Amino acid sequence: MVTPTNSRPKKEHHCSIHRSLDLVGEKWSLLIVRNALRGESRFSQLRDNLGIPSDILAARLASLVDAGVLERRSYREQGERERFSYHLTEQGFALKTVLVALQEWGDEFSPNPGGRVSLTRDTSTGQHASLAFVGDDGSVLDAQNVSLVPGPAATISW
Amino acid sequence: MVTPTNSRPKKEHHCSIHRSLDLVGEKWSLLIVRNALRGESRFSQLRDNLGIPSDILAARLASLVDAGVLERRSYREQGERERFSYHLTEQGFALKTVLVALQEWGDEFSPNPGGRVSLTRDTSTGQHASLAFVGDDGSVLDAQNVSLVPGPAATISW
Repeated sequence: MVTPTNSRPKKEHHCSIHRSLDLVGEKWSLLIVRNALRGESRFSQLRDNLGIPSDILAARLASLVDAGVLERRSYREQGERERFSYHLTEQGFALKTVLVALQEWGDEFSPNPGGRVSLTRDTSTGQHASLAFVGDDGSVLDAQNVSLVPGPAATISW
Repeated sequence: MVTPTNSRPKKEHHCSIHRSLDLVGEKWSLLIVRNALRGESRFSQLRDNLGIPSDILAARLASLVDAGVLERRSYREQGERERFSYHLTEQGFALKTVLVALQEWGDEFSPNPGGRVSLTRDTSTGQHASLAFVGDDGSVLDAQNVSLVPGPAATISW
C-alpha cells in the first residue's frame, strides 16, 4: 500500500480520470478554462473577472501552459511594455465537455436562484445543446445503463 | 437580480460551473466519486485503493455528505464496532457525466501508455458509450459548433 504522496512523479497514474485531474483538478484551473472559452485571454482580464490573486493566477497559467491546455503569446500595445496573453489549444478547447458536464450538474442539483449565468448552444442553429451518452451506432443511450467498467490496463477489478 | 460580490458567503456564486467546483472541485473529491461509482463504499477500501491519508479522506467524505453527493450509512460486522459506509446519492451518481468527460479527455490527450484502465459501456447492450452534444431534437451536434453563451443571470457579457 501505498503511494508516494510527496514525490509526485509526472503522469504516473494509469487511470485517465486521475491523469486528467492531475492536470486540471482544482477549481481555479477549470475556471480559467471557463473564462478562456468565453474569449478572455489577458492576465488582467482573467484576474479581474475571476477575482483570483495574481500570484495564484500566474502559477495556474504556467501549469496550464505546461500541461498543453493554454498557449502563451506575447503582445504589445502602443507605448506599453510587452505582455502575454493566453489562448486555448485544441486540448484546452476539448475541456468544453468537462465544463458543460459541470454546468449541467450544477444547474440540476444546485441551481442559482437568480437563473442561469451560462447556456449551451449550437451556434449553427441556435438550438440548446446538452450532453448525452451515445452508442457506437449514434443512438442516444439511457444514462442509467452506462457504467465505467475495467479496461485492459485495470490493476484492480470492480 | 442580486449581486453579492466580494463577501464570499457560502454557495453565492451564480455560475453553475463555479458552484459545482465549489462542491467537488479538487482531485480527491472526484476520485472518491470515481471509486464510489466502481462500487467501493467503505472507508478502509477507499483509503487503500486511493492511497489517500485518513484525515484527508475523512474531511472529503464529510464534505461530500454535506454537499449531498454521498450518504453515510452505519454497519456492524460480527464482533466489530459500528462503522460507516458511503453511498452515492442521485446527485452523486449524476457526476458520472463529469467523470466520463474527464476520462475521455485524458484518453485523448494524455493516454496511459499501458492502455485504458476504465471503459464506458452501455450495460444493457455491451456497446461502447461516449459523450456527445445533442440538440433538443435528439440529433448529435458537431462539438465545434457548441458554445457557452450568456444566460439570463449573466452579470458580464462575453
